[in-house]
This record gives sequence, structure tokens and C-alpha cells, in this order.
Amino acid sequence: MAHPFQAEVEGLRPNPYSINPLILDRWSPRSMMGEEIQTQELMALFEAARWAPSSYNNQPWRFLYARKNTPAWPLFFDLMIDFNKGWVKNAGAIVLIISANNFEKNGKPSRTHSFDTGAAWMGMALEGSSRGLVVHGMEGFDYDKAKVSLSIPDDYQVEALVAVGKRAPAEALPDELRKKEAPSPRKALNEFVFEGKFGR
Amino acid sequence: MAHPFQAEVEGLRPNPYSINPLILDRWSPRSMMGEEIQTQELMALFEAARWAPSSYNNQPWRFLYARKNTPAWPLFFDLMIDFNKGWVKNAGAIVLIISANNFEKNGKPSRTHSFDTGAAWMGMALEGSSRGLVVHGMEGFDYDKAKVSLSIPDDYQVEALVAVGKRAPAEALPDELRKKEAPSPRKALNEFVFEGKFGR
Repeated sequence: MAHPFQAEVEGLRPNPYSINPLILDRWSPRSMMGEEIQTQELMALFEAARWAPSSYNNQPWRFLYARKNTPAWPLFFDLMIDFNKGWVKNAGAIVLIISANNFEKNGKPSRTHSFDTGAAWMGMALEGSSRGLVVHGMEGFDYDKAKVSLSIPDDYQVEALVAVGKRAPAEALPDELRKKEAPSPRKALNEFVFEGKFGR
Repeated sequence: MAHPFQAEVEGLRPNPYSINPLILDRWSPRSMMGEEIQTQELMALFEAARWAPSSYNNQPWRFLYARKNTPAWPLFFDLMIDFNKGWVKNAGAIVLIISANNFEKNGKPSRTHSFDTGAAWMGMALEGSSRGLVVHGMEGFDYDKAKVSLSIPDDYQVEALVAVGKRAPAEALPDELRKKEAPSPRKALNEFVFEGKFGR
């Protein structure tokens, strides 16, 4: 089955390696309908995160979420900078991704908790995008406030906020956001892959 | 097309959410053939990493690699603890994943460089596994030595080492590793997903 975002990505991301469309066709739109999202669909996204690899299978990722029109929503919504509030108001859910700083088994500091949690986030992003959903990660929110508002213990680190929702056409966005509503490019392989030692 | 690891995962990871097989069927075997791996195939893995999302599209990930039977190989191989040397000797390539601590655009510290790089790593792991390859991440190596041996600048952080290679049957492994050669389980969703505030 074709990826629901394939037509938009086509031509913008020419690819000689024929990698999985699930990976190539994922991108991060912002335009959403304002509809609610079913818990069942959200759980499928967390289920996709669940199977990520992690060092010693420690699974340091934790996901907190709020659905639209529920008491938890303002706790999450109010964390964001105004720019993000402007479009995330039409999301169906907001998800906060955090990670455990220490190994669960022995309490020792984990080197890879953020890295491993990023892998889980990617599972969620890929699954959501393949379902035609907006799954858009953000750094534009108050990390310190998140810890307080959501009672996050000191031995957890806040990683990212994510808007999840039903897509709307780009035309539903205000002018300045509509211009950004397209799959973004990437560095060329030879800018970030090196055989042997590091070379910028 | 069925995932090449599907038969092994079947039954071990019952899943009511019918998520993408690319995600559900990935796991991290260790048994490899000792064969070389083509640069073309390695590049497809980096290409899959390439399209990951990152904060402000900063793309902090960098990949250094060594192919078997090339001068760079011992620089990577010698970083590992003995346990990993025991099975990675049969890999076709070793990849070191690092991340840029600061934003490329303005030099400011990045909050999400490890997290974003974890997302790119997941792209690589998923693509490799769907090609039937072993793509196995490791923390069991000398992070400080990696920085020196591979000339990694101070403004980059070492994240993980990855073995990539052609799979062999579990029987090719020594006894103690053969017992571990199976897809691992995960926490239940309600152990890491919370609606609203954090709850352990």
C-alpha cells in the first residue's frame, strides 16, 4: 500500500537506494482538523515506539499525553511557545516524551537514555505518518515548566513535545505557516557519513 | 512483502494494534557470516537515517564506518569490550554514531542532539533489518578512546557503536550467545504511557 504522504514527497526526495517508503515518505506537517483522536489510535503509536531497541533493553522512554477536551490538555498546551500554540490548538493530542536517566535494573547512570528514546520516538513518528496523521515533534516549549506541571521526577529528562492529529489541507493554515507546509530537504550523504576517521 | 524476520517474531510479540511490520519485526540478532558488505548496501542504511526528523532540521547525526578488511577496521574493532569483539568479528562493517552538540546554524547548544540522533539510528536499524541484515547497536565499547582514535572533535558526542553484517543461523554462535539469539520482550504499554501527569 502506498504511503499516504507519497505524492507530496515525490520529486522532492529523489532516492537511488530505494529505501522503505515508510521512512522516505514521513514528514512533519502542521495543518490539522481540530478533531479529537481516538485513544486506540494513540496507543498504536505508543505500541510502535515500544519495540525500539535500547541499551540492555532498558527501555528508558516514557510518554505522557493529553487528549483534546480533557482536563489534562491545558497542562500540556500551556507549556508551548506562542508560535506552536498557534497550530497545535488544532491537534487531537499532545504527547510529552521523557527518558529515565538511570538504568532501571541497577540505578546506574545511563549513557544512552536520550538516544534510545529518540529511537522510540522515530517508531511513533513513522507509524503515525503511515496512518496519515500529523506527528510533529517540537523543542519550542518550556522544559523546566514541564517537569513541574506534570510532576516529572528528577531522575527523568524531558526530551520533546509532540503534536498528533488528523491532517487538514495546507490551505487551512495561516499564511506564514502555509509556506512551510512541505517536506524538508536533508544534507547530502557525504556531509554526514565518513569512512574511517572523522572528517567535516 | 513479508519482513525477513517475521517468522522469528511471530507469537513472541502478539500485537492488537496491527502496527507496521517494519517496526514490529525488527530485532537485533548477533549471528553473522563474516562476509563483507557492499558500500552500496551500507549507504542505503545511512540514507534511511538521513530522513529522520530533528529539531529545526538541524540533522546533528554523523556516521563513521569501517568495512571489514580495510585499514580503518582495527580502529573501530579495538574500541569494543571483549564480549562484543567475540561476535562483531563476523560483521561486515562497524559504524560509530556521533552527534553535534551545537546547532550548525548559530553554534548554540542543542538540547535534542542525542534524541534526534537516536531517531536517525532507528531509521538505519529498520532499513537494515528489513533487508535481512544484522544491525545491532552497542554501548559496550570505550567512548573516550573512540574520540581519540577517530579524531572526533570536542563539540561532538559519541552515541553508540553498531555492527552490520549478513545474518547466519543461530547455530553459528557459541553456546552462551546462542541462548540470547531471540527477539526480546518489552514493558507493557501501561508501564511507560501515562495520560496526564507522570505516574510510575
